[in-house]
Amino acid sequence: MEKKVRVLIDCDDAKGLVYKISKVFYDRGLNIENNREFVDKEQSKFFMRTVVTGDFEVEELENELKKVIPSDANLNVVEPRRKKIVILATKESHALGDILIRHEAGELDADIEAVIANHDTLEHLVRRFDIPFFKVSAEGMSREEHEEHVMNVIDEQEFDYIVLAKYMRILTPTFVKAYPKQIVNIHHSFLPAFIGANPYKQAHKRGVKIIGATAHYVTDDLDEGPIIAQDVIPVNHRLEWREMQKAGRDVEKVVLSRALNYILNDRVFVHGNKTIVF
Amino acid sequence: MEKKVRVLIDCDDAKGLVYKISKVFYDRGLNIENNREFVDKEQSKFFMRTVVTGDFEVEELENELKKVIPSDANLNVVEPRRKKIVILATKESHALGDILIRHEAGELDADIEAVIANHDTLEHLVRRFDIPFFKVSAEGMSREEHEEHVMNVIDEQEFDYIVLAKYMRILTPTFVKAYPKQIVNIHHSFLPAFIGANPYKQAHKRGVKIIGATAHYVTDDLDEGPIIAQDVIPVNHRLEWREMQKAGRDVEKVVLSRALNYILNDRVFVHGNKTIVF
Amino acid sequence: MEKKVRVLIDCDDAKGLVYKISKVFYDRGLNIENNREFVDKEQSKFFMRTVVTGDFEVEELENELKKVIPSDANLNVVEPRRKKIVILATKESHALGDILIRHEAGELDADIEAVIANHDTLEHLVRRFDIPFFKVSAEGMSREEHEEHVMNVIDEQEFDYIVLAKYMRILTPTFVKAYPKQIVNIHHSFLPAFIGANPYKQAHKRGVKIIGATAHYVTDDLDEGPIIAQDVIPVNHRLEWREMQKAGRDVEKVVLSRALNYILNDRVFVHGNKTIVF
Amino acid sequence: MEKKVRVLIDCDDAKGLVYKISKVFYDRGLNIENNREFVDKEQSKFFMRTVVTGDFEVEELENELKKVIPSDANLNVVEPRRKKIVILATKESHALGDILIRHEAGELDADIEAVIANHDTLEHLVRRFDIPFFKVSAEGMSREEHEEHVMNVIDEQEFDYIVLAKYMRILTPTFVKAYPKQIVNIHHSFLPAFIGANPYKQAHKRGVKIIGATAHYVTDDLDEGPIIAQDVIPVNHRLEWREMQKAGRDVEKVVLSRALNYILNDRVFVHGNKTIVF
Repeated sequence: MEKKVRVLIDCDDAKGLVYKISKVFYDRGLNIENNREFVDKEQSKFFMRTVVTGDFEVEELENELKKVIPSDANLNVVEPRRKKIVILATKESHALGDILIRHEAGELDADIEAVIANHDTLEHLVRRFDIPFFKVSAEGMSREEHEEHVMNVIDEQEFDYIVLAKYMRILTPTFVKAYPKQIVNIHHSFLPAFIGANPYKQAHKRGVKIIGATAHYVTDDLDEGPIIAQDVIPVNHRLEWREMQKAGRDVEKVVLSRALNYILNDRVFVHGNKTIVF
Repeated sequence: MEKKVRVLIDCDDAKGLVYKISKVFYDRGLNIENNREFVDKEQSKFFMRTVVTGDFEVEELENELKKVIPSDANLNVVEPRRKKIVILATKESHALGDILIRHEAGELDADIEAVIANHDTLEHLVRRFDIPFFKVSAEGMSREEHEEHVMNVIDEQEFDYIVLAKYMRILTPTFVKAYPKQIVNIHHSFLPAFIGANPYKQAHKRGVKIIGATAHYVTDDLDEGPIIAQDVIPVNHRLEWREMQKAGRDVEKVVLSRALNYILNDRVFVHGNKTIVF
Repeated sequence: MEKKVRVLIDCDDAKGLVYKISKVFYDRGLNIENNREFVDKEQSKFFMRTVVTGDFEVEELENELKKVIPSDANLNVVEPRRKKIVILATKESHALGDILIRHEAGELDADIEAVIANHDTLEHLVRRFDIPFFKVSAEGMSREEHEEHVMNVIDEQEFDYIVLAKYMRILTPTFVKAYPKQIVNIHHSFLPAFIGANPYKQAHKRGVKIIGATAHYVTDDLDEGPIIAQDVIPVNHRLEWREMQKAGRDVEKVVLSRALNYILNDRVFVHGNKTIVF
Repeated sequence: MEKKVRVLIDCDDAKGLVYKISKVFYDRGLNIENNREFVDKEQSKFFMRTVVTGDFEVEELENELKKVIPSDANLNVVEPRRKKIVILATKESHALGDILIRHEAGELDADIEAVIANHDTLEHLVRRFDIPFFKVSAEGMSREEHEEHVMNVIDEQEFDYIVLAKYMRILTPTFVKAYPKQIVNIHHSFLPAFIGANPYKQAHKRGVKIIGATAHYVTDDLDEGPIIAQDVIPVNHRLEWREMQKAGRDVEKVVLSRALNYILNDRVFVHGNKTIVF
């Protein structure tokens, strides 16, 4: 049956990989719709994302490909499908709202399964879109207790990714380890500048002339995960930190949505602490 | 009674204007919170926007100021107030949605009185926010007839500004003249490049390496009104025109909201076919 | 003998091109150092730039490749070599100076054979770098006569490309046709905005909030050739047109040098009136 | 005698400053060519830069102004004059070359008195421009000894500012204290990201999607002085760190020259660890 798949390969580099892989496609009469590859020469790593169409069985294609790539290669033959996401937020609505509007317009290749927040500020907005909202208050709880409650709600959902749309709480290693390569965060600075709390206050104090935002996967180290997308805007001495914060929101929401879009389209490879975005 | 006003002055330039105006503020014991001025030397025009606070009557302040500025000066002493806007749209939701989310978050210094569209595509979204939606179909009508219907709906509203949030229809001079300096449009190109229909198709065909968006006041000449804000993003040969269109939406919505924010804060002077944005 | 070549192919798209081409490389035991390809689906055109290393004869590789690509394909197997350029200028030194400094630093993969100008303003600067300078005055001559003189000087040089580093004269079709795909120009606006004379004056008059520069191949139609690189900077109402011009120079020189660098590295394909830049 | 001066004032904020200062100008019949002011409300500080023309004595104007501003205000009435600079460099020519070309074109409002470097790599380039070049080798010397030699050469020059055009050595507090608010540096990252050595290597390792450059005054703390100008460019996974370095050079040179231009035009106020750039 005619189908379209995204073939994702990362492995140690070796001579002839492009030839051998494209031979598999050619021998089966598949069409290459799109092809990107990259070799990190320093680390001798090969990355490839190819969109192919044709009449084939996914499992058979996988088996054929496995024969020509290194045995420890990561291979994914992905049939494009609508992903599922869970969103964590706190009180600010701009990043969440941007995703909600895209979702409503059919421009987000995902279903929003739930929005979870530690305050009820955003409940009204989320309910306007008929999306389940869960308030999990952190009041009177230890970080660990609160996270357990949040994880309970998350684990009741079906989801591919957890999106931190200005979730203003630090995650414990337990949480992060539970969802490896599944958590995407928007940090309100051009990382690695202004790691940690209140980057706009820090930026204002430092007197920078540009501010920015960074979308990244969340790993153990706070604000240290692989960067997916970044952008900046110019500022000047006239802006107080709250005005920087306000101006920065437009960058934050656009950068998060851009990164989310890359991920939902299987365009991101994680490579150590970096990303390859095709 | 303690109050805060924005003093807006534009007039022919003359020696001592800053002195005379600031003397009025000083003599009345007012505080200057913010002050920006600009002189267009080529055309010998003076522009000033000053935010003052103090205990005074607006009318008295106006009278004092009138004594020191040229008799044909434009003077506005504006008490900051929540403005009212009417939005015109067609089918695309990104620019409208961005305004709705800001409105909901209390970040837009305006009330949305109504959304009017020539299709019902956006009705569902608008109703989610409990904002009146009016479909005014253009089907089977001349441009003039349709506009008359739209103007009827507009004129039933209270409003300060009309925001064209991707309203994909050309306005007649009659319409434009009815709302002078009140109509703000977002054009999906970095004007004056790609005036007219389908700028992304034009941009793709021309093979540009950047695309952009322009927020401007609407005047008689299509896409020729005073520019308020512009921004761009890089593109490359990989993007088909529909992908340019998709990427461009983020620029469009941010630029329109930025311009709208300037206007709602009385930061924009129209100066011939240009703007001064303080 | 071990060598490195850039294999440049553009042709009608066909199934199996990547496979067949990479098979040629594989069968000869060549290493792929870098590979980029692009398919313009709308026009069904295939573009590929591959850097391969190994022990082979260029002519043999070409013959092998010709067997697997369409008979009317454009194929170039290029051994990286220092190119030669001739620069045309008028009075402004920023774009020329930027190239001279890069040249001096060994960062330009080209030798500057000559600088030709219609004024002697830049002679002193060029001679500082021990580069031949030719003044070809246009005074008292028709455009055609002047160009004939310029072409005489050009044709005495060995060169791969002619770089118009702010050459402020319009070229006739005769001139352009004599050097097809060999002339690179920097235009001082983000084309297609402000085609023609004095774009900064035009930009100032139009009241734009961004200005830019465009590097492009020169074809018959003024400012209409394939765009190679573009960039912009923000401006505001405070800048008079001469200040825009001054600010714009930094964009002009950087964009021209960037485009020149792409060309010298054989990274640019001309595709109708567009470019593919790998 | 008709003259033009830049009046620079920074002081504690107080009611009526604009009025009182503009009254001084008005009473003497001076023309205001340009006026910018800024109040840092948080710290209650007032900054003003006014360009005035007229027939007056500088000393008298200063005395009049002193009467109306706080006694501990910083007041400078500056007659625009060509400044003098000394440039420190190491081996890279792009930032130095950019300044040399501007200087040659008469676009730099300064004379380059000398270029001092710890290697002779740049000697040839500097001599092309008939500018004194001093090599002060650091070989076999302690940092303190080397600096003493450099300072000896500097102190033999007349200069207003010392420009570090990619001077790759750390300065001691002794050096920095000797030239307060006179040293401008270009750092090859968007500070405060990647402080210290080899920021491009750091940026590459961190996997950022933008790189940048920062021009700042040099103070005791390495890379911590007041920022004057910053800019960035996008990068991606394809760039090795040396390619980032190469791409970054265009940002570095443009940002340094921009900052230098601000300084030479007396447009920069230092305010704690920040700058006000009018």
